[in-house]
Formats: sequence, C-alpha cells, structure tokens
Amino acid sequence: MFLDQDFLLTTDVAKKLFNDYAKEMPIIDYHCHLNPKEIYEDKNFNNITEAWLTEGNNFGDHYKWRLMRANGVPEELITGNGDPYEKFLAFAGVLEKAYGNPIFEWCHLELRRFFDIETVLTTETAPEIWEQANQKLAASAFSRKSLIRNMKVKALSTTDDPIDDLHYHELLKAQEKENGFKVIPGFRPDKALNIHKNEFSDYMDRLSEVSGVKIEHFKDVVSALEKRVEYFEKYGCTICDHALDSVDYQEATIEELDEILVKALQKETLNSKEVAQYRSALLVALIKVYADHEWTMQYHMHALRNLNATTFDMMGPDTGYDAINDEAVAVSLGRLLEAGYKEGELPKTIIYSLNQNDWMQLLTVMACFQGGMKQKIQFGTAWWFNDTRTGMRNQLQMLMEQSLLGNFIGMLTDSRSFLSYPRHEYFRRVLCELLGEMVERGQIPNDEERLGKMVQDISFNNADEYFGFLK
Amino acid sequence: MFLDQDFLLTTDVAKKLFNDYAKEMPIIDYHCHLNPKEIYEDKNFNNITEAWLTEGNNFGDHYKWRLMRANGVPEELITGNGDPYEKFLAFAGVLEKAYGNPIFEWCHLELRRFFDIETVLTTETAPEIWEQANQKLAASAFSRKSLIRNMKVKALSTTDDPIDDLHYHELLKAQEKENGFKVIPGFRPDKALNIHKNEFSDYMDRLSEVSGVKIEHFKDVVSALEKRVEYFEKYGCTICDHALDSVDYQEATIEELDEILVKALQKETLNSKEVAQYRSALLVALIKVYADHEWTMQYHMHALRNLNATTFDMMGPDTGYDAINDEAVAVSLGRLLEAGYKEGELPKTIIYSLNQNDWMQLLTVMACFQGGMKQKIQFGTAWWFNDTRTGMRNQLQMLMEQSLLGNFIGMLTDSRSFLSYPRHEYFRRVLCELLGEMVERGQIPNDEERLGKMVQDISFNNADEYFGFLK
Amino acid sequence: MFLDQDFLLTTDVAKKLFNDYAKEMPIIDYHCHLNPKEIYEDKNFNNITEAWLTEGNNFGDHYKWRLMRANGVPEELITGNGDPYEKFLAFAGVLEKAYGNPIFEWCHLELRRFFDIETVLTTETAPEIWEQANQKLAASAFSRKSLIRNMKVKALSTTDDPIDDLHYHELLKAQEKENGFKVIPGFRPDKALNIHKNEFSDYMDRLSEVSGVKIEHFKDVVSALEKRVEYFEKYGCTICDHALDSVDYQEATIEELDEILVKALQKETLNSKEVAQYRSALLVALIKVYADHEWTMQYHMHALRNLNATTFDMMGPDTGYDAINDEAVAVSLGRLLEAGYKEGELPKTIIYSLNQNDWMQLLTVMACFQGGMKQKIQFGTAWWFNDTRTGMRNQLQMLMEQSLLGNFIGMLTDSRSFLSYPRHEYFRRVLCELLGEMVERGQIPNDEERLGKMVQDISFNNADEYFGFLK
Repeated sequence: MFLDQDFLLTTDVAKKLFNDYAKEMPIIDYHCHLNPKEIYEDKNFNNITEAWLTEGNNFGDHYKWRLMRANGVPEELITGNGDPYEKFLAFAGVLEKAYGNPIFEWCHLELRRFFDIETVLTTETAPEIWEQANQKLAASAFSRKSLIRNMKVKALSTTDDPIDDLHYHELLKAQEKENGFKVIPGFRPDKALNIHKNEFSDYMDRLSEVSGVKIEHFKDVVSALEKRVEYFEKYGCTICDHALDSVDYQEATIEELDEILVKALQKETLNSKEVAQYRSALLVALIKVYADHEWTMQYHMHALRNLNATTFDMMGPDTGYDAINDEAVAVSLGRLLEAGYKEGELPKTIIYSLNQNDWMQLLTVMACFQGGMKQKIQFGTAWWFNDTRTGMRNQLQMLMEQSLLGNFIGMLTDSRSFLSYPRHEYFRRVLCELLGEMVERGQIPNDEERLGKMVQDISFNNADEYFGFLK
Repeated sequence: MFLDQDFLLTTDVAKKLFNDYAKEMPIIDYHCHLNPKEIYEDKNFNNITEAWLTEGNNFGDHYKWRLMRANGVPEELITGNGDPYEKFLAFAGVLEKAYGNPIFEWCHLELRRFFDIETVLTTETAPEIWEQANQKLAASAFSRKSLIRNMKVKALSTTDDPIDDLHYHELLKAQEKENGFKVIPGFRPDKALNIHKNEFSDYMDRLSEVSGVKIEHFKDVVSALEKRVEYFEKYGCTICDHALDSVDYQEATIEELDEILVKALQKETLNSKEVAQYRSALLVALIKVYADHEWTMQYHMHALRNLNATTFDMMGPDTGYDAINDEAVAVSLGRLLEAGYKEGELPKTIIYSLNQNDWMQLLTVMACFQGGMKQKIQFGTAWWFNDTRTGMRNQLQMLMEQSLLGNFIGMLTDSRSFLSYPRHEYFRRVLCELLGEMVERGQIPNDEERLGKMVQDISFNNADEYFGFLK
Repeated sequence: MFLDQDFLLTTDVAKKLFNDYAKEMPIIDYHCHLNPKEIYEDKNFNNITEAWLTEGNNFGDHYKWRLMRANGVPEELITGNGDPYEKFLAFAGVLEKAYGNPIFEWCHLELRRFFDIETVLTTETAPEIWEQANQKLAASAFSRKSLIRNMKVKALSTTDDPIDDLHYHELLKAQEKENGFKVIPGFRPDKALNIHKNEFSDYMDRLSEVSGVKIEHFKDVVSALEKRVEYFEKYGCTICDHALDSVDYQEATIEELDEILVKALQKETLNSKEVAQYRSALLVALIKVYADHEWTMQYHMHALRNLNATTFDMMGPDTGYDAINDEAVAVSLGRLLEAGYKEGELPKTIIYSLNQNDWMQLLTVMACFQGGMKQKIQFGTAWWFNDTRTGMRNQLQMLMEQSLLGNFIGMLTDSRSFLSYPRHEYFRRVLCELLGEMVERGQIPNDEERLGKMVQDISFNNADEYFGFLK
C-alpha cells in the first residue's frame, strides 16, 4: 500500500533490516544548504507554501518550481507574488501528474512523518490538507530546530563562503547542547576558483581583506584561502566542497599562473586554457591544504548551471534553470587527482557527479587513489536530479560492484528545505530493498547480524567515524 | 505464456489498467514514414515478404535487414532479387536466433493481431505461415487503409520535404471521412539545413522555385521556408521534424551567414565552423517561425548515418547502415534552445535522442525552457534502436523522475511499415507494467480511477490535446 | 540460500535451463592472461594467498588489490613482503565489507567449486579456511593443469607478444592429448602500435630481428608483423587482440606514414595527430592481414591505464591503477572499420568496451559491417570492471535487443588466475536468469528444447564453431 510500513521493502529480509536496524538510527546530514541564520532564529513557517515552495527571498525549492513550470503554472504562482493558497493549489495539481517523480513521494512522506496526514494530496484534498498542515506548522514542534531535532539529526553541515564571518555558526555552537545537534560550517571556495567571472576581482579584494593576505601572486590566493581554512576550523569546520561543473586539467608554470592572476585582477578577459590552468593549479594546491588540515574534500561535478539567459536575467541562480553536463571527465579528473596525490596523497575525498554516465568512470578513477585509511575516497551518494529510487539503486549497485559497500558513508539531503529529512528514510529503504534482493538471489549470506550492522554503518556509523563531527 | 493476454503485465494492477483502460484507446501516430501515395493507392501486399521485408523500391524494413546480415544471410535474400519465399525462409531462420530482440516480439504480435496466427515462426513452421498469411493478405481487410483503420488509428503524420507539392495529401484530405483517419503532412527541412552536402545548392534552386523567393541572403532561406510552412499549413500540417544528427551551436553575424550561404550556393567547400554557424542560425530562425505558426517542432538527435561507405555506394541511405552517435550534447543543445527562447519562447517541442546516455541531460535541459502551457517541451519516446522494452522502460522512468509522466504524449511508430501499429499496444503494456510495479512497491496510490485516466491520457488523450490533429 | 544450487536462478525455467543444459557444458576460454610457462610447469600453489592474491612476480590479482587498498590495508600486505597468512587475514576483513562485489561471490564460488568449503570467509573463519584450503592446494588435483582440466576447459587462448618465441606453447602443443586441453597463442601487437612510447624504437629493432624484415618504411612494419602472424599460425594461433584504449581515426598518405615512422625510430617526439595517423593506418593494414589469414580480431576499448604516476613509478603496470575512459568513440571506430571494410571486408571481429556507455553505440556500429557468415562481428562479453551480474545482464540485454543472442560466443575469463573458471558458471546462471524472466513475461516461447539449445550454444557450441580451436 502507498507509503505504508512496507514501502519499497519487497522482501522479508528488507523489512527486517529496515524496521529492526535502519529505522531508528540517527542522521548526520554532512552536506546541505540550510541557512544557519534561519536555524538560529528558529522561526515557524506561516503555512505549507512557505515550507514547501517559497518564503520571501530566503528559500525556494527549485526542484518543485521546475515541475510547476512543466505543468504550465504561471510564474506568478511559482516565484511570483501569487497568493500562498493559490500556489499550494497549483502545486497540488502538479502532483496529480507527478506519479513516479521523487517529489510526489517526498511530499507525501513529509505529510506523513511531520504532519501525520495520510491523505493523498490532489486538487480535491488540497483545501483540507492546507488547513491541517498550517495548523500544525504553528506548533512549537514545527520550529526550524524542532524539525531538525525530531528527525534525530545529530549533525548537519552547511555551505559557506570562505569570506563569511560565520557569525550564526558561532551562535549555534554556543547553544549546541540545548539544540541537541551540531551545525558544522562547510567551506566552499567556488568564487576563488571562478576566475572567468566578472566578480572575481572584487571577490579577491574581499578575500584579501578578511584574510589579511595581500593578493598579488598565485601563491597569495592559496595563502589567503588557507588563512580562511584556519578561521573556519575554529568553528568546527573539517569539510569543504567544490562545484566542479566541468574539469579540464591543464598544467602551468608558476610564472604563467602569476600572469593569469594579474590579468584577472585587472579584469582582462582570459582564454579557456588560462582559466583551466588557474583552476587546476588552485585545486591541486587546495588538495594539499585540505590534506594538511585533515579535512574532507567534496567535488560536485557536472552541473550545467543557469542555462536559460532570459530567465537568469530575471531571477538569478538557483531558480530551477540548471541541467546536467556531459563532457568526458575520466582523463582530466584522473590527472587532477594524480597531481594532488604527488604532493603527498589526497585528503579524505567525496566525489559526486550529476551525470550517472560518469559514475563507473569516477569509481574506477577513485580506486587508483585509495589507501592509507578505510575508504578514504568515497563515491558520493546519488545527487540532485539523481536523488530518486533509480539513482540511489544505481549508485549503490555501482559502488558495491566497484568498491566496498560496507564502508559507504551514506545519504545526505543537499537540501534547502527543513522538511527534507525523510529522504534519509527513503535511502535506507532503498538500501534494504537491494540487500534483500541480493539475499533472495543467493548473492550474499542471510546473516542478519552482519547485514544489520552493515545497514546501521551505512545509515550512520560510517559517516560518524569518517567525519568525526560528534567528537 | 508467450504473447498471451498477460504479456508484460506482471501485476494485477497492470492487467486491470491495460485491459480496462489502455487496450481500446485509439491511436494518434504523430510521426511516421508511411508513404502518402501508398496510403492513397490502398493496395494489398502480394505476400508477407512484401509486407515485412521489401517491396520493390518502395519500402524496406532495414531493422530486419540488419538482423539478416548479422545471421549471414546473403544480400540477394535481403535487398536483392531473391525469391520472396526464400527471403521469408531466411528471415524465419533469423528469428530463431532473435529471442529478446524487439523484432521477434513485433513479428509475432503482428501475426497474432493482424493474421490471427499464434504459431511461432521458425524454419519448420515457415511454409504453413507463408500460406496462411498470404491468403489473408489478399483480403480487403488487408489493404493499406484497412490496416490503418483496423488498428483504430485516428490520425498519422508523415514525413515530407518542404519542396513536396503534397499532392497525395490533398487527395487523402478529400477522402478523410470515408477513410476514417486523417493523414497530416510533416515538414522536414533537413536538406535546407544540410549546407555541407553536395546537393545543397541544387536544393536551394528548387526551394526558391516552389516558394517564389529568390535566395541570395540568409534571410531568404528563412523566408522561403516560411512560405513552405504556409503552404504545408493549407494541408493541415502543424508539425515539423529535424534530423539533428549532431548539434554544434555556433554564433555568427548576419554578414557571416550571408557569406557562408553564398559560398555554399557557389559550391565552395565550407569548414565545420561555417556549417555549424549556418545550421545554428537557421534552427534559431525556424524556432521563431514554428512558434509564430503554433506548430510542434521535433528534434531527432544523435543518429550516425550511412556509416559504411562501401555499402552506401551500392545501396544508398536507409538500408540498415546507421548507428548511434555519442558526442556531448548538453551545452550545445542548451545554447540553441536558449537562443530560440530569447526570440520569444519556444514552440511546442519534442526532443528525441537515439543515444540513451543523452536522456537525462535532455530532460534537464528541456526543463529549463518549460512554461506557458502544459508540458510544452516533451521528452520524445524511445526511438529506433531504443524501441524495446528496456528503452521504453528507461524513457518512461527518466521522464517520470525528471518531469510529469501524466502529461506525456506517448508512443509513435516512426515506421515505414503498415503492420507496425501493435507497437502502440507494446508501449501501453510496458506503461501498465511500470505503473503496476510502482503500486506494488507503495510508490503511488492504488487509485484505479486516477491510474486509468493517466493511462488513457498517455495512450491517446494527451497527444490528441497537444497536437489538435482531430479538431 | 547463499550460492546454493538456485543461485541467481529466480524462475523454474532458469533452474531447468541451467541444471539440465548449461551446467555440464565444457569451456572454451578464448581470451585470458594465463602464463604458458606456468601452465607447462604445472606447479601447485603453496597456499591460498599465492593462488588468490600474489605469488612473487608471476601473478597478482589486481582486482583484489584495489579492494584491499580501499579498505586501508597497508601495501605491505597487498603487494609487499608481508606474511602470506597476514595477507589472507587482511583480505578476509575486506570481504566482510564487499557484499555485492563480484569478488565476494567469485571467492566463495571458488571455495565451493574447487575446495568444497561452504563456510563464509570472514576474519573469524579465516584461520580454519586457511588450513583447509592450503591442505587441498597441495594435492595433485590442484596442480595448474588439473585446475584447468577439472573445470572442463577444452581450449584456452593466452595473450602473447608478436616477438615471443612461443617456446612454452610449443611444449604445451606437444602434450595436448595428455593435458586434455589446448593452449592457443593470442597475438597482441600493442607495442608495435604504441608509437608514442619511449620503447617503440627498441621494440621495432627486436621485431625486425625476429621477423627478418628490415624496418625502414611503414609497409615494413606491416610485413614484419605479417611474418609473425605466420609464425604464430604454426603454433595454432588464429586469434589476435588489440588494446584500443582510445580510438582516434586519422587518415594519412603513405609518405606521411613513412615520415612518422622515421621520426619515431629516431626517437623524435610525435604530435597526437601523427600518433593517430600511424595507429589508424596500421590497424587498417592489420585488418587486411587478419582477414587474409581468417583470424579473429579482438578490440578491447576504453581502458585508461596507469592513472597514478606515483604508484606506477613504484610498481609498474597491471597493479590495480587502471580506470575507464569516456571519450566519444562511435565516429572514429566507424571510420576505422569502414576503412578496413573497403579493403575487402572485415575479419571475424570481437569488440569489447570497458565503458558500458559505449555499448549501444558499438552494437549499432558493428551492425553496419556484418555479413558473409553468421555473426561475423561479435559484441564482446562484459569485461573487467563490468564482469558483474549487472554488467553481464546489460551486455546480454543490449546484445539481444540489437543483434542475435542465439549467435553469441559467450563468456571468457580474461584472467591471470587459475581459479577463475567458475565465472563461466556465473555467466551461465545470469543467462538462464534472463531467459527465465523473459519466458515469465511472455516475451519468448516456453520451448525447452529451443531454449536449452540456445543456452548450450552460447555456453560452448558457438565459440567452438566460431573459433574452430578444437578442430
């Protein structure tokens, strides 16, 4: 039956594993886009439209916006000034067409897990669900922090710019005990790498200012970023992230790098080779910085962002106009990691690609740089457009066939939404489904103790050990 | 049991949905390669070899030819002057090896649905089936038009060159009522885009002649094609198609485009950048034309045609020597659509790729250009080499995970064969199979009414509404 | 139950087909990396670590080494001088994490089929299995030749350099009858194609020496290799293999080729176009040589080798530092085969790619060059990183959908290990699993006789007929 206790659990083994082992495990959400200020302020949502679709300029679930556009909903009821209830009604109409879309399942899981609402959301049931959900949202159990706490989240890591002062992280750190969960900053120096963008030069000015490092040569960029790594570390940060939308590894001399930097600081246009040279060198230098600091490095590859110039001019980034890129990655990624490895091995590294076609290549490239600790290089969980049953199954299947499933650090939400935690449940169900199928086909022993331990490790223990956030 | 009423229907829900909802729905075959002259003349086939394999120069099912070559059948019994019965025997021998090939299933479905023959075709049963099938083929129920009508086809769209006079379309339009189905011309201006081919210059002469537009500048090509769009419209055409074998988006000034055109008209050789510039600009210009006329635009991407020069010299195109291309498409397609969108949004658009590796990228690129109406941009059904259970399942799965399944316009045959309509049945079974599986896993509600409606919408209603052919 | 008689056999049809038809068929292992000297010397293994993991410099199972590195095992216990028992213990610890990895299933199949050990290998059971396995390994039934014979291997083909004298092949040929199996040399002229490598010039000297052909012009390379083809033929060789890590088809005049060769012989650096021109021309020339000699040609595509320069400098090739490449292949491979076809059709050809994303393209490219005999061009079985249930299923599924499953020549081990033959059993189970599923869905007739014959053909008969090794 729809989303009942057996949801996705197609074998007795799967049911046993999920209910007796996975279900109650806490969560480490090691990469997300929650806003630390919003967490700290701990407000309630005024209505389900705010929680799900849009809330001023703070939050927008562009996954949902895309579906609304596909259904022909006018932009006024998506990102515009439309009435919240009208927006909700329009979204209910979209869900009727969305069978098989993860948003269909997520929304209904959220209605069940947070709101105890088991009614299927349609145009007909929307009025009743609007009332019920909004009533609950006003309760203290629905404040931002409560939503996190009630889902047994023990730690979450946000996404922050190196020039951020981490003010809200400082405040959250101070109240860690009463909150019942840790909020770890995540260092994301994309703007320092995006030398081809107009804002680069200004960004360097600000980086120079907050780091106290005068930036004239390539090595100064590295020093400035390392200063910020040290700053972030004071607030508990041990994790970073890179949007590796494309990877084009190109070598350069230090003199060339200095020249490229000077040109960029003077706002001269760079050619694509120069951009690639600067990015390659900085990524290699950062590999060493992260390794020295024993951080975990994340690469998020192959997003193709802001594809529609017309809508970008109106709405800016992260509004539902991104896609998947499909260039060859194996050679360039291999050469980048090789160059980093030469400097004294890699830091703990997690590599994600938005393009499932890359996954086998990534797994085999990563295997060439393992060693020194248990599963140092991790194959990132199914991400963004792949955050579906199909994507999760493929990710787990390839991971287990090419590496060691038992060492996997598991799921994260990568979400801007405070209601997204049931995705961890979804992932655990998919994991148990797959293991159950393998037992039935005779591929693995029906050894409940070992299987149960593996499920718990992947649900929580491995991430706990790998990141050490809770220490 | 083999091809029985439960064929592909592995759950009770699937059986219910197919039998009570999908089965009896009519067909809109919105893209095919049937010859309007052949439809109009309404002849019978002389024998099953003519219907299935080859009939003079009119028709050849190169899907089947490829399999025959793979089995070592001499070319004489494939495209040559061999005896029709010998050809049939050779083909029967091929089918014995073809378990799991869609042709195996299609042929046997066709034997059942058109001929009421349930015997499995093998070398041993071939003589008996040859007799039975040929006897039936002589009956009036087996004339071209009867085959179409008996499969409940309400409209079909052919593939026509902009310079065609549409004479047979005119004749068919006049007898629409007695035929019981509509035949819609499909505008396919590939030759106007193929500026790199030898015949381009001559083609421009003919286009100029039929359109009455003197072609000297780039804008004249657009004007001439728009004249033909208007001409086609008189015969009910509201759909076009492009063979986008590869897509390399390159910008150009209007002066550059004029120069490129002049060089091509003078039969000078163009470099690959010039070819890409011309094609890009013409595609963008046509996007505007189609949008203005409220047509539906189709892109068929990533075919790699006429791969074997030796056989091409002997036999020409469409003889079974095509393959799938595998270049990166996301960035170029994105830029092409972006350029079109800037001109005032896109027309209704259907994008197909022959390469399944492209599908996720296409779906995510398309999502960046949705809006203005329900599912304006459609993800094309599994095409050609992907017209298999696996291909259909993948197409539906990706579509539902990345967009709105309930809005899908569904299946088409893309076929040169008058016996290919059971592929619509095949598709509907696959759709019901998938929905049944999702109900069993608890991913969607077991709500017969909604599921039945969705199945009927995808089988017929959505295409009917999207194209409006039957208005 | 784990690896019991029903392992992977999920339907009654599958059980019937495997047990009554597939199970007892002999094996033709038409491509492997066993060392002919080792076969000839027929030694026993001293312990299970030697058999599984490493034995001096003779053998190393780098598939397993990669997993050990992923688990953080120190290199000393992988390729180093660690104690064999300690290595085995470390490997047992790896297997505990390796659920779903083919190595988990292979190792346990090997324990069952060769050693009659049904205990699951874990850190706890390792001591007992170490004793039991080592005791058995000392028996005469565990000599190299016995391992081959007991698995019903009737012929196997090794991988040999054109300059090899085939001494051990000569010795093995002389004792063919008593051995009970044939060992066929396999001609692998990679070094003659690798004109970009430092050792090319020296290699040409040695090739010149053993062939008696002075190498000054491009045509001399071809002549020298053809001499070696003739030499290999004396020892029963009718098969060759190419590591087509990447394919970049570039045409050249004979003068250009001569110049490129001279530069390389003089150890001058070539640019990438020159390398591609030489490789393309030599591949085309060899196509003709192989076709003239009625050999079978193999292409192994898209390996990305020796990715980690640091470890390569320490350990050399084939030590577990390879990955999958992902460049576009369709156009270049098509042009290469087209050029070969023009010279008078292709030899029997088997094309493998390490990248599953290539498979549909390969199948459709190959179909453009079929003809002249039954399934002349074969789609290679799931190879290396794809040698998994998923990989095998995908390979078989794509093959049956795009070509003729009934003509498939089936499985090979491609292995350096004498214990790898149960992979043939694994493959046959996967094949029967797939056929059983198709019967259940009504896609193929439940005709035991035909299905049984197809299974036996794919398990053995087709390879026997295709290669003719046993004649």
